[in-house]
Order: sequence, then structure tokens, then C-alpha cells
Amino acid sequence: MEKETVRMEGFSDAIFAIAITLLVLDLHIPDKDALTSTTAIISYLKGQWPSYLAISISFFSIYIMWVNHHKLFKQIYVRNTGITFANGLILFLVTAVSYPTGLMARFFDTPSANLVVAIYTGLFVLINLSYNLLWYIASRDKTLLRPDITNDAIKKIKLNYLYGLPTYCLAFGLSFNYPTAALIICVVLWVFWALSSGRIHHNENLV
Amino acid sequence: MEKETVRMEGFSDAIFAIAITLLVLDLHIPDKDALTSTTAIISYLKGQWPSYLAISISFFSIYIMWVNHHKLFKQIYVRNTGITFANGLILFLVTAVSYPTGLMARFFDTPSANLVVAIYTGLFVLINLSYNLLWYIASRDKTLLRPDITNDAIKKIKLNYLYGLPTYCLAFGLSFNYPTAALIICVVLWVFWALSSGRIHHNENLV
Amino acid sequence: MEKETVRMEGFSDAIFAIAITLLVLDLHIPDKDALTSTTAIISYLKGQWPSYLAISISFFSIYIMWVNHHKLFKQIYVRNTGITFANGLILFLVTAVSYPTGLMARFFDTPSANLVVAIYTGLFVLINLSYNLLWYIASRDKTLLRPDITNDAIKKIKLNYLYGLPTYCLAFGLSFNYPTAALIICVVLWVFWALSSGRIHHNENLV
Amino acid sequence: MEKETVRMEGFSDAIFAIAITLLVLDLHIPDKDALTSTTAIISYLKGQWPSYLAISISFFSIYIMWVNHHKLFKQIYVRNTGITFANGLILFLVTAVSYPTGLMARFFDTPSANLVVAIYTGLFVLINLSYNLLWYIASRDKTLLRPDITNDAIKKIKLNYLYGLPTYCLAFGLSFNYPTAALIICVVLWVFWALSSGRIHHNENLV
Repeated sequence: MEKETVRMEGFSDAIFAIAITLLVLDLHIPDKDALTSTTAIISYLKGQWPSYLAISISFFSIYIMWVNHHKLFKQIYVRNTGITFANGLILFLVTAVSYPTGLMARFFDTPSANLVVAIYTGLFVLINLSYNLLWYIASRDKTLLRPDITNDAIKKIKLNYLYGLPTYCLAFGLSFNYPTAALIICVVLWVFWALSSGRIHHNENLV
Repeated sequence: MEKETVRMEGFSDAIFAIAITLLVLDLHIPDKDALTSTTAIISYLKGQWPSYLAISISFFSIYIMWVNHHKLFKQIYVRNTGITFANGLILFLVTAVSYPTGLMARFFDTPSANLVVAIYTGLFVLINLSYNLLWYIASRDKTLLRPDITNDAIKKIKLNYLYGLPTYCLAFGLSFNYPTAALIICVVLWVFWALSSGRIHHNENLV
Repeated sequence: MEKETVRMEGFSDAIFAIAITLLVLDLHIPDKDALTSTTAIISYLKGQWPSYLAISISFFSIYIMWVNHHKLFKQIYVRNTGITFANGLILFLVTAVSYPTGLMARFFDTPSANLVVAIYTGLFVLINLSYNLLWYIASRDKTLLRPDITNDAIKKIKLNYLYGLPTYCLAFGLSFNYPTAALIICVVLWVFWALSSGRIHHNENLV
Repeated sequence: MEKETVRMEGFSDAIFAIAITLLVLDLHIPDKDALTSTTAIISYLKGQWPSYLAISISFFSIYIMWVNHHKLFKQIYVRNTGITFANGLILFLVTAVSYPTGLMARFFDTPSANLVVAIYTGLFVLINLSYNLLWYIASRDKTLLRPDITNDAIKKIKLNYLYGLPTYCLAFGLSFNYPTAALIICVVLWVFWALSSGRIHHNENLV
């Protein structure tokens, strides 16, 4: 059975790659005339720390989303309208990540940190929902999936994305009062996904 | 028979992917010093609604164009000069989408809405013409197509793109007086294409 | 014999695709507050004609370069250091196209038109030289090429790129006094290449 | 044995391609009204020489990194979490190159040259470490590698990246006092890598 989703994967990969590379454009190069001493440049560069933080977090979050996308599509062999547009929704939200990243870069060290972190974590709630939607649509009809996939593997993947949802919702809820804690929760979740990704991958091959 | 158009598809995919990802760059991140309160940021973000509208519409319209491009090229196995340059024309117009999107984002909530929507819908008239041109060139010479394609399938594809033309022309005509109605017509057409895309795909495999 | 240059082609395609898509970013979206009437927007958009001209010319010139790149690499099966870096030189110059395009967009309707057209055509002289260099390196050692390529085909490709050189040099020379004529020469050369590309491709398969 | 890392290579290639193409965006197109004579434009363009220098150096350094990435992944057949994230680290640092490039473009002809060159060379120290990390992780477990790779080839690749480290550290150290010398060391190292790349590749096939 031929895998039909190859070109969709390639297209998605390109969008992930562009979205992840554009993040760095948020860093502004200071004006030559405004910064006339080495000390002034250093202090300008140091003052940009919320940008470094926001860009790093977003880079690795998009990278992990790409790894997850890769894994889901390894199981999806046939596409239908539902898969095409659930995937479109994921890609739309992924390209959108750069904007909340920019907002966080600009306002994380101001009293509006809670607002921008809420927007940021809120976007990840939506992205998590769109991944769940894609897998829901794909797994409803086993003829769309890799022929030798087991029900166990289907369920494992489903749970893997589902447990992200309450975590992101918690982060979103916390961000209104404890924006730093909300970000830490997201980072911990990503580290967990990163560490578990090798194991899950291993299981995929076993089952 | 080897499919000769694989590298052309890859190149086109990359252009679609970049064009669709660059749309979000139209969103400006407000200046730190200009917005000193959370309320000010919220009201700034709310005021950008025409941008959200324009970017969302353009994202899904380019996505549907990509799906259609994918489908056409599944049928085209051999390329000639005509196909190469009809495809070049499509890609040129697709990369251009971001500019009318930006104009619409800036002026949709001003008295100039009709002008910017007319430019926007006018571009889609041109894109539709370029898709029709590509299929006209490809289908004139059956040696360029997938060997087992039927005349029925060729005609079905042709009609599928042709009926878009009067719809886009209607939207273009309406935009001078009823810009919102013109946009709604475009969105309805895209939803229709999206919903019918699964079915058409199914037919392709049957015929 | 396996084709070793597939990943190099993919990488080059991506660079061509990005370079061609970034051209449109040169168009600036007018400021909402600066243009308060529909007439003002129309006159602003009309005043941008040198941008439309420069972007269109550059789009199709990069597109034709990509077609040519594609054709050359269809013949190159093995890479060595020389090919890797001649290709790097081509890609470097291709990514550079956007800057002279932007200069031309800004200054073609000023008395400095000759300077910006000279820079523009000068870049194409360099690009032509880099294509000639790539083919010179590749064709020196027939073990790098498609196993069944004939000496005739090698020579035909060589001549195809070589005759571009005097034409570009003529355009470059003319641009100091007749910038419009210089651009027309470039466009005529590209149309010629475009029209001959089908034929050359046909020959490739015959020989 | 199937090569599992194909999609990771494609994704990495796309990021390298975008990062390398975005470099040119650092060149600013002068304002029409600010430069009213051809002489003024010429002097503006000449004054941008640090940008030309920085962009050229960065272009070829990313290009050589891509060649090296390509070579490493030709040997890596199976991915695990370590490889996925060491690769993510490389990609993160590669996308970051544009920022120190921009800083160097702006400040290389000012008394702050040493600072910006130190940041620039410092980034290459980190990139070199991330390549060493990737190969360390991959070569620790021979089941991840191309089945017929020899211990000799593994060691040769390791040494090839390791000797870059002291060179970059030297460049980094020198940049605080002799920024130009530091840049020359980097360029010499890249020329050396470029020239040796054909030979190494040849060895890969022999061993």
C-alpha cells in the first residue's frame, strides 16, 4: 500500500521550517548612531533578554511539534478532506506562533507579562486541540492508517496528545497571575515530550 | 512511465509554503514605549481585527490552492515549456497574495474597503485564470498526462476550475459596492472546494 | 549508477524558492493615516510601478535560472568539491538578486536609473559566469555526468550558457546610457531561453 | 536497512536554506528622498561594505555547515532522542547566525568591532560543539549508523570536527584584540574544510 501523504508531509515540513527560522527576525539590530560605545551595545544586547527567552522557547516548542507531526504522519497513509484541513489548521496555528513570541519578547519584562503569556499559552492550547483533532479524524477510520498499526498503538498516541491538554490549560490559567510559572510548566511539558519521544518511537516499531 | 514533474512539484510546494508562512509577518508587534498598560495592549490587539481576518482568509485560500495544485500535478507526468511557464505564472500570483492581503489588513475598516477588496478578489480572478490555463495546456496533449487518465476525469477537472471563474468575477464585481459580500462569496467558494476535494480525489482513484 | 546530487538539488531548490518568494516583500503597504482617501491609495499604488516592473522581471529571471539549474543537475550525477562550490556561488548570487531588484524598484524612475540597471545587469553577468563555471567543472570530467550523455549534448549545453554571456555584457554596457534598452535585452534573452527550453529538453532525451 | 533520517534531513535542509537566504535581508535599500544623486547612491552602497563582508562570510560558512551536516547524516541511519535534539541544537544555532551577522555588518567599522566579532566567532564555537555533540551521540551506538561504516571512518569524521574546536577558540580569543585576524582564521578554516570536503567524501566511499 502506497503512502499517499508524502507530499503533504513535505509541504508541512517546509512550513514548520520557515516558521521556526523566522523567529530570529524578531531580534532587532541596534542603530549604529544610537549606540556609540561598546558598553552601550552590551547593555542593549543584555536588555533584549526577553527576546532570547521567547525565541528559544518558541524554537524548541515548534521543533517538538514538528517531531510530533512527523510521528503522527508516519501512521497516516491515506488522506481525506478531514485530514487535509485538520493539518491545515495545525499549520495555520504553527505559523501564528511568531506573533505571540514577539509580544512576549516585547512585554515579558513589563507589568503586562500576564497578558502576553496568556496569549502565548492560549495559542498552545489551540495547537494541542488541533493535534487531537487530526488524530481523532485519522484514527476514526483505520483504512487511513498504516496497515499494520495496532489498536494499542492508536490509543497510546491518542493519550500522548490528550494529556497535554490539561497541562496547557493549567499553564493558560496560571499565566494570568503567575506568568513565569506558566512558562515553566510549558517547558517542563516539552522536556517530558522530548525525553519520551525516543521511547514512543521505539514502541511504534515494536507494535 | 516515470513522472518527470517531481522536482517542479517540490519547487512549487516550497513557494506555496513560504508564501503562506510570510502572511503572519504583516502583524506588527506594538512598540514597548507606546503601549504602557495592559488595557492599551488589548485595545491595540483588538484594533488589528482586519489583519486577523485578512491573514486567515489568505492562509486558507493559499492552502486550498496548494491542494488543487497538488491534484493537478498528480495528473501531469511530463512537462513542456507551456506547463513550466503556466506553473510559473501561478507561482508568481501566489507569491503576490501577501500584498493585497496587507492592503486589506490596513484598509478594510476604512471607506476604501471596496478598493482593497476589489484588488484582492481581482487577484483571485487572475489566479483562477492561470489554473485554467495550466490545465488547458496540459490536457490539450494527453501524452503529458498520467497514462491511465480517462477523458471523463480530464473534463471533470476542467469543469472544477472553470466554475470558479464566474464566481470570482461576481465577487470582483460586487466588491466595488459590497466588499463584505464579495469576501463572503470567496470564503463560501473555498469551503465548497474544500468539501468537494475529498470526493474529487476519490473519483481520481476510481477512474 | 545512483544519482548522488539529489540532496544538493533539494537544497538549491529551497534557496531558489525562498529567493523568488521574498521579492514581493519589497512592496510596502502604505500607512493607514498617510492615505485617507481611495484616490490617494490608488495614486500611491500607481506610483509603485517601478517595483511591479522590477519584481516581475526578477521573478521570471529567477524562475528561468531555476529551470536551467534543474536541467544542468539532471546531467550531473556525482558531486565533487568544485561542483559543490560552483553551485554555492550560483546560490549566493541568486539570493543576492533581491537587493538590486529593490534598488531598481526605488530608483528606476529617477535620474539614477542607469546606475541601478547597471548593478542589476552586472549581477546577471556574474550569475551567467557562475553557471558557465559549474558546467565547465562538471563537463571536464565525464565520470561526474549522467552515464549515457553524449559529447554532443555536453557541447550543446555549454553553448546554451555561453551565448548568454555576450548578451548580458551588452546589456550591462548599454545600461549606463540606455537603461530601458538594457532591461529589454535581458527580457528578450529570458523569453528566448524560455521558448528554447522545451526544445533543449526534448533534445536531452533524444541524445 | 531503511534510512530513517530522511525526513529529518529534509527538514534540516529547509532550515539551512532559509537561514542562508534571509542573510541578504540585512541589506537596506536606501530611501528615495534621502539619496537624490547617483553619487550619493554610490557612496551609500560603498559605505555598506561591512554588510557585504558579513553576509558573504556568513553565507559560505552556513553553506559549508550544510555540506558537513549532509555528510554526517549520510552516515546516520537511525534516529533517537539524542540525535533529534542534538540536531535541533545545531539548527537553532544556525538560524541564530543572521543576528551576529547583522551586528557585524553594523559595527565592524566602528571601535566596537572586537565585541561583535567576538559574538560572531563565539557562536561558531557553539556550533562546532553542537556538531561534535551530534557525532558523539551518533557514534556511541553503532546500530544508529550506516551498516557498513568502519571504525576508521567514524574516527576520521570525529577528528575532522574536533580540530575545528581549538581553531574557533583561537579565533574567539583573538577577536577581543584583533577582530580582523579572528575573521581571517575562520575564513581559512572554511577554505580548508571546503578543499578537504571532496577528499573526505572520496574516503567515505572507499571505506
